[in-house]
Amino acid sequence: MVEKIKETAILLMYCADRRGLVVHVTEFIDNNNGNVVSLDEHVDREANIFFMRIEWELDGFLIPKEKIGEYFDIQIAAKFSMTWNVYFSGDRPRMALFVSKMSHCLYDILSRYHSGEWEVDIPLIVSNHPTLEPVAKQFGIPFYHFPIGKDNKAEQEQAEQELLRKHKIDFVVLARYMQIISEDFIMAYPNKIINIHHSFLPAFPGAKPYHSAYERGVKIIGATSHYVTADLDAGPIIDQDVTRITHSDPVEKLVMKGRDVEKLVLSRAILMHLQRRTLVYNNRTIVFG
Amino acid sequence: MVEKIKETAILLMYCADRRGLVVHVTEFIDNNNGNVVSLDEHVDREANIFFMRIEWELDGFLIPKEKIGEYFDIQIAAKFSMTWNVYFSGDRPRMALFVSKMSHCLYDILSRYHSGEWEVDIPLIVSNHPTLEPVAKQFGIPFYHFPIGKDNKAEQEQAEQELLRKHKIDFVVLARYMQIISEDFIMAYPNKIINIHHSFLPAFPGAKPYHSAYERGVKIIGATSHYVTADLDAGPIIDQDVTRITHSDPVEKLVMKGRDVEKLVLSRAILMHLQRRTLVYNNRTIVFG
Amino acid sequence: MVEKIKETAILLMYCADRRGLVVHVTEFIDNNNGNVVSLDEHVDREANIFFMRIEWELDGFLIPKEKIGEYFDIQIAAKFSMTWNVYFSGDRPRMALFVSKMSHCLYDILSRYHSGEWEVDIPLIVSNHPTLEPVAKQFGIPFYHFPIGKDNKAEQEQAEQELLRKHKIDFVVLARYMQIISEDFIMAYPNKIINIHHSFLPAFPGAKPYHSAYERGVKIIGATSHYVTADLDAGPIIDQDVTRITHSDPVEKLVMKGRDVEKLVLSRAILMHLQRRTLVYNNRTIVFG
Amino acid sequence: MVEKIKETAILLMYCADRRGLVVHVTEFIDNNNGNVVSLDEHVDREANIFFMRIEWELDGFLIPKEKIGEYFDIQIAAKFSMTWNVYFSGDRPRMALFVSKMSHCLYDILSRYHSGEWEVDIPLIVSNHPTLEPVAKQFGIPFYHFPIGKDNKAEQEQAEQELLRKHKIDFVVLARYMQIISEDFIMAYPNKIINIHHSFLPAFPGAKPYHSAYERGVKIIGATSHYVTADLDAGPIIDQDVTRITHSDPVEKLVMKGRDVEKLVLSRAILMHLQRRTLVYNNRTIVFG
Repeated sequence: MVEKIKETAILLMYCADRRGLVVHVTEFIDNNNGNVVSLDEHVDREANIFFMRIEWELDGFLIPKEKIGEYFDIQIAAKFSMTWNVYFSGDRPRMALFVSKMSHCLYDILSRYHSGEWEVDIPLIVSNHPTLEPVAKQFGIPFYHFPIGKDNKAEQEQAEQELLRKHKIDFVVLARYMQIISEDFIMAYPNKIINIHHSFLPAFPGAKPYHSAYERGVKIIGATSHYVTADLDAGPIIDQDVTRITHSDPVEKLVMKGRDVEKLVLSRAILMHLQRRTLVYNNRTIVFG
Repeated sequence: MVEKIKETAILLMYCADRRGLVVHVTEFIDNNNGNVVSLDEHVDREANIFFMRIEWELDGFLIPKEKIGEYFDIQIAAKFSMTWNVYFSGDRPRMALFVSKMSHCLYDILSRYHSGEWEVDIPLIVSNHPTLEPVAKQFGIPFYHFPIGKDNKAEQEQAEQELLRKHKIDFVVLARYMQIISEDFIMAYPNKIINIHHSFLPAFPGAKPYHSAYERGVKIIGATSHYVTADLDAGPIIDQDVTRITHSDPVEKLVMKGRDVEKLVLSRAILMHLQRRTLVYNNRTIVFG
Repeated sequence: MVEKIKETAILLMYCADRRGLVVHVTEFIDNNNGNVVSLDEHVDREANIFFMRIEWELDGFLIPKEKIGEYFDIQIAAKFSMTWNVYFSGDRPRMALFVSKMSHCLYDILSRYHSGEWEVDIPLIVSNHPTLEPVAKQFGIPFYHFPIGKDNKAEQEQAEQELLRKHKIDFVVLARYMQIISEDFIMAYPNKIINIHHSFLPAFPGAKPYHSAYERGVKIIGATSHYVTADLDAGPIIDQDVTRITHSDPVEKLVMKGRDVEKLVLSRAILMHLQRRTLVYNNRTIVFG
Repeated sequence: MVEKIKETAILLMYCADRRGLVVHVTEFIDNNNGNVVSLDEHVDREANIFFMRIEWELDGFLIPKEKIGEYFDIQIAAKFSMTWNVYFSGDRPRMALFVSKMSHCLYDILSRYHSGEWEVDIPLIVSNHPTLEPVAKQFGIPFYHFPIGKDNKAEQEQAEQELLRKHKIDFVVLARYMQIISEDFIMAYPNKIINIHHSFLPAFPGAKPYHSAYERGVKIIGATSHYVTADLDAGPIIDQDVTRITHSDPVEKLVMKGRDVEKLVLSRAILMHLQRRTLVYNNRTIVFG
């Protein structure tokens, strides 16, 4: 629907704050004939860290695409001890979906995928249950069933990781995947596994948050998308949203209302990740608008 | 601004659920020529409890106002082992305000009071600090300063309770009163002390919730009004609301954005209480719209 | 996921307000051994009209299901000149979907349908474009293409209505159907055609509301679901919702953000309609919570 | 509460977009030893206009404060045909309040003023009614009553403008001032008169929007703050917000719920203006976060 814009390069970076950082980075792009299309910077004054996202058109840029990282590293990043990454809008990330039995997030993601709303490839869906295989089939996406029990978790995760590597997966989305992922797996995809938790974290972490919300008598429920870390439900938050409930809503109604919040929050988080708008520092996520 | 409506009676009740409760209550009012202006019922199916709020015009009602409770008790409530209360819209409740140093909730309450938005009397303001005495003076309300230290808490609370009794206070509002109230005091005003906590409970109870919210990197902050119980920040919730924040908001900005949420949530909770729309059961608040 | 509850009867009614209406209706149900599971009433004081929705369990009810309407009409409705309807939770309404080229609402509806979230049948999808036939196929629902031009509108609508009659369609949902329906068609389905308009009505009726919103520089956009009347985009509103935008969002971003609001608002409206919670009077929709 | 930060300079500018604008502006500041604390830029791709807000610490800046405008104009702005303004965080703007009979916005503003939440001076309150003089007195602010009838509007506005000039008023806030201001007056304060309209514009412009909202049966109401232009209720929007209503809310309830939205939206708009975060172009307001 949207006209294809020209290919762009996106630089995400952070380093200790000091005077003139914006000048150095923008000069690097300008001197090489890059036309900046968006620039966002943020300074965490408590930690004294400078964060920046800058996007410019590749068309006419003097440095060849595959050399941009090298030049930026040598001329700018090294000087300021920057942590950085460069991405190109033309590179479609490859996303793996992990699901269990509930379909609402899966459908929301696949319908966006199918209608071309996102620049992404979804080569495969992984599940610990066979329940959603028919949905995968509807959309023609290979479905891999890895049942996980007490005794086979390590080897099953091994096989899953093997599959992800084989398919050159860039990041993983847990679309209501109801199985804890082990630390080893998480370490292999740092800030590259996005989860949706069905509560307004840090309220109600762990299992059955809607039941806890009902018990506590809250008047608002929510959902939280975050990068997965070894610390359960405590990873850096990407997005959250809420919806109002009343005393007359039983738990089933919370579950139903919550589904709509979950699917939108997860899909918004995926979009931010796809557009390279997120940067994690100190367990907090900078999300550049 | 709103035309004065005729005086009404309001019955709040609950009991074990059974067939026909609505019929019995509405017949009681109808048979005595009462014109019902609003009726709300709720059944907690898990606990099997029936809750009801019914309001009718006193004009033309056969039972004299001061006898309504007695008649209802004997003819209806006793039969169904109801817990109930009757109120009259013409009786202005008497509210005591407890404050510390922050003025935003106090101003919000007093400006509504002064403009006649609420049917309430505010005979006095109590504080553990002298800071807000000038605000009390602006609105011509007596201000009582009870400094509380390690050694005098019990006697100061004794004096406060004495003052409340003397002024026939019906309920207490803690408008950012930064001092924990002892169990003894709370027991004297069951479900009659309304607090505003500056977080989206149960997230971030206790002190400095905005600092904790910043640390955790949440994308939404909130405020919670609740009846005070002996269990700190764990009483039955009356209302909550939230506002969106971003990674670029420092703690001071959270505090500033939070103030607007706090004052509205507290004032909405007070209105619900004033209009006899709240019923507490099992640490949850039924709020009849 | 939700335990199947017992079959219920639902009565929707309205009439001139007078004392005792609730008593008469609840007595009718109680005297016939009906167990009321929910009761909502509303009095429009300006128009002096009483509205009510009451739901009770059929199990043990003395009047046989197929006679309830007759008994209620003779014993209650006639006496008070009520307009009324009775529904049964066990009767699955039959819904027709009308779409054009955009898939987001269609996917949202079909994914709820497919996962069993709603009690509804969808026997067919109608479109003025072939674009979404593959989506219909994904879900195994017959797709009918009725191209509409200047010269064939009347006869195409005739054929559409024929199709709806043949399939015993109860109500129609326009899921971003971009073709004005003629008055004749609308009259055949009074308050039974639900539309989603992609603006916060009455702002920006008609075509290209996101472009108008951009031009006007609003800070919030929205969507509106309403029953279709002969007056374009002016029918009784069922639900609305909004989302925040900023000066930096181009029209394409408004369209994208708007899609998520549209699909949720439309699906919520459908649910309210399915649960028989809506009553239209004087171009306004009562939506019983 | 917030620690005083060092004095800063704020530059707001716009011009035709071209490559390198950010570099030139940031170099100007960096070369003169300025430490940038925040930078926001926006490109309107349709109109091809570049907008920027940049803020830096004056401490250590080589160019003396009173010469910054001159240097920037000669070295940068002239080259790119920029429209620009420079402000200093230490200069407290002087705001005049215009009110009529309703106090909620006035109280909200004065309580923020009184508690030191805003960096602003309020030398006077103007009204076409004497109603709110007591509120002005509570806060010790001079109150000027200018009754306006059919025959004296021009001369009264003349006197008001005289008063504003005498008190060196920088901008005017219409805090529910229910009198149309003439074009002549508006022209004297371009983008310097902020109004709050009690509807979600462009829905329900003009008088009695809550009545119109009730009639139309909307499910959400709102408020809109905007700069005043000669075109009634059509000026550039600064902020908007909404609140949910139901079929059971009579007009008086809409008015009551609306007041809370109005006061917050107006106060947020004032803050954005005070912090020099707004830029008007082509009847749209850029609001830099």
